[in-house]
Amino acid sequence: MIGVDWGTTRFRAFRIGRDGAVRDRRAGPRGILAVPDGRFAETLREEIGPWLAAGEDQVLLSGMIGSRQGWKEAPYVACPAGAAELAAELVEIPFDWAKVKLVPGLSGTDESGVAEVMRGEETEVIGVLADFPAGGIACLPGTHSKWARVEDGRIVRFTTHMTGETYATLRGHTILGRMMREGPPDGAAFDAGVRRSAEPGGLLHHVFGVRAETLAGRLSDGDAGAYLSGILIGHEVRAALAGTPGTVVHLIGAPDLTALYARAIAACGAFAERHNGEAAARGLALIGAAAAWN
Amino acid sequence: MIGVDWGTTRFRAFRIGRDGAVRDRRAGPRGILAVPDGRFAETLREEIGPWLAAGEDQVLLSGMIGSRQGWKEAPYVACPAGAAELAAELVEIPFDWAKVKLVPGLSGTDESGVAEVMRGEETEVIGVLADFPAGGIACLPGTHSKWARVEDGRIVRFTTHMTGETYATLRGHTILGRMMREGPPDGAAFDAGVRRSAEPGGLLHHVFGVRAETLAGRLSDGDAGAYLSGILIGHEVRAALAGTPGTVVHLIGAPDLTALYARAIAACGAFAERHNGEAAARGLALIGAAAAWN
Repeated sequence: MIGVDWGTTRFRAFRIGRDGAVRDRRAGPRGILAVPDGRFAETLREEIGPWLAAGEDQVLLSGMIGSRQGWKEAPYVACPAGAAELAAELVEIPFDWAKVKLVPGLSGTDESGVAEVMRGEETEVIGVLADFPAGGIACLPGTHSKWARVEDGRIVRFTTHMTGETYATLRGHTILGRMMREGPPDGAAFDAGVRRSAEPGGLLHHVFGVRAETLAGRLSDGDAGAYLSGILIGHEVRAALAGTPGTVVHLIGAPDLTALYARAIAACGAFAERHNGEAAARGLALIGAAAAWN
Repeated sequence: MIGVDWGTTRFRAFRIGRDGAVRDRRAGPRGILAVPDGRFAETLREEIGPWLAAGEDQVLLSGMIGSRQGWKEAPYVACPAGAAELAAELVEIPFDWAKVKLVPGLSGTDESGVAEVMRGEETEVIGVLADFPAGGIACLPGTHSKWARVEDGRIVRFTTHMTGETYATLRGHTILGRMMREGPPDGAAFDAGVRRSAEPGGLLHHVFGVRAETLAGRLSDGDAGAYLSGILIGHEVRAALAGTPGTVVHLIGAPDLTALYARAIAACGAFAERHNGEAAARGLALIGAAAAWN
């Protein structure tokens, strides 16, 4: 089968064998925002044409391609859900050269009853946590970081933290960014920001400290960005880990970002295990298998 | 004497009698950002010329006019400081038509030792708290909200919270703003946001809930802004009041904003007293008196 993690800004495809192993892969910038006029079918055929020509005839898509802004909207499946529950709700799309199905997103609530949704991350979480039958906690850092708790192979609850987007907008559009220059993202200033997030005063006070400490000559222009990043990631990690000290967090994502989160998680007294690479491929293979595609 | 609260975006002047009463006032948009080519002397003369012609010859300026971006930089005075300490460090500026002096800003640290500065708010806090000899807590909400603790007429400690600027940038430059329409700022949605700020998950998770609840159809486009505002102000108020339940907070600022904060403070179990109008004039008169100007 062919598995595709088709997000907002990137396209990643995997040719997956009957044993679940990735036989070939391709990745590029043709996320759904880069596809003009709804030409998703044409784009898909251009991207995976050689594999179709080689005989593949089943394609499973996950990610924002199943959103209202994507090819076709796939309804959300309610938590708790794992590969079997997602496989039962695949949405088929007409496509002339193969059978194409969408993995639905997940919906749920946080512990206070506030709504949550994810689309794409569920496939990666299921892929990684398949190797941990006892379950655990997964974190996918990014623009909208996701934290998910898995029990018995099913995602039982998850939360979203707007950390990456908040960092970008504070840096790009407030007084904090005016004094920043590029500098090392992962040095002592990042660690200081993570420590700062444990102090009294709250996040809105802590972020102002980036300016105050720079004005006071105690923080350099080149370190201010890393300090801000440490404050925000520290707040996210502490809130997400509240009540579960010493836990293991499975980090899924790009190496530079999971490295930062691993530092912050260790500083907060928990343990990080980084998974890079092909969580999505593994999840797509598992969901495909649960749908009896293999 | 003449007192002027000259900030970044507005100019407010008061003609103050020997008894400290405000005899006349004027206000306009000629904040320091609106003064071209450093023409502060000309601007001041245009604004208060009639009072100078009537015999006033002492002018005290507070606010960002004393910053590096203003007329002349007045060094910060370290906390604790009140009218006497500020009066002892006034900075004179050459001006042909009267004696002009700048009130210095205040510097300090928060309880964790992180740097803090203010410029202009110290004068308003001293003005309002003069009526409360036992001291108390003042809050000046805004782009960069200030909370100050006053003891024996002196500001002993203060903190800044980047609440207003964070609200503006989240609304103006992130996915949260895309779905917002104008709506009542102070209704049930604001109160729901304040309550939300007490729940687990942290600020970065709570703000994402604005989007998730809207997508789930549980929050209207017109209420989303007020809900976000309540979340942020709620986080600020809870962090600032931590450890001092049931306290009285003296709110200083524009009526619409102090009304919102008063709602949030009451919801957090404390008591708000709103002071509008002429806190700056009162503070300038007190500092002038301490400098033996009256």
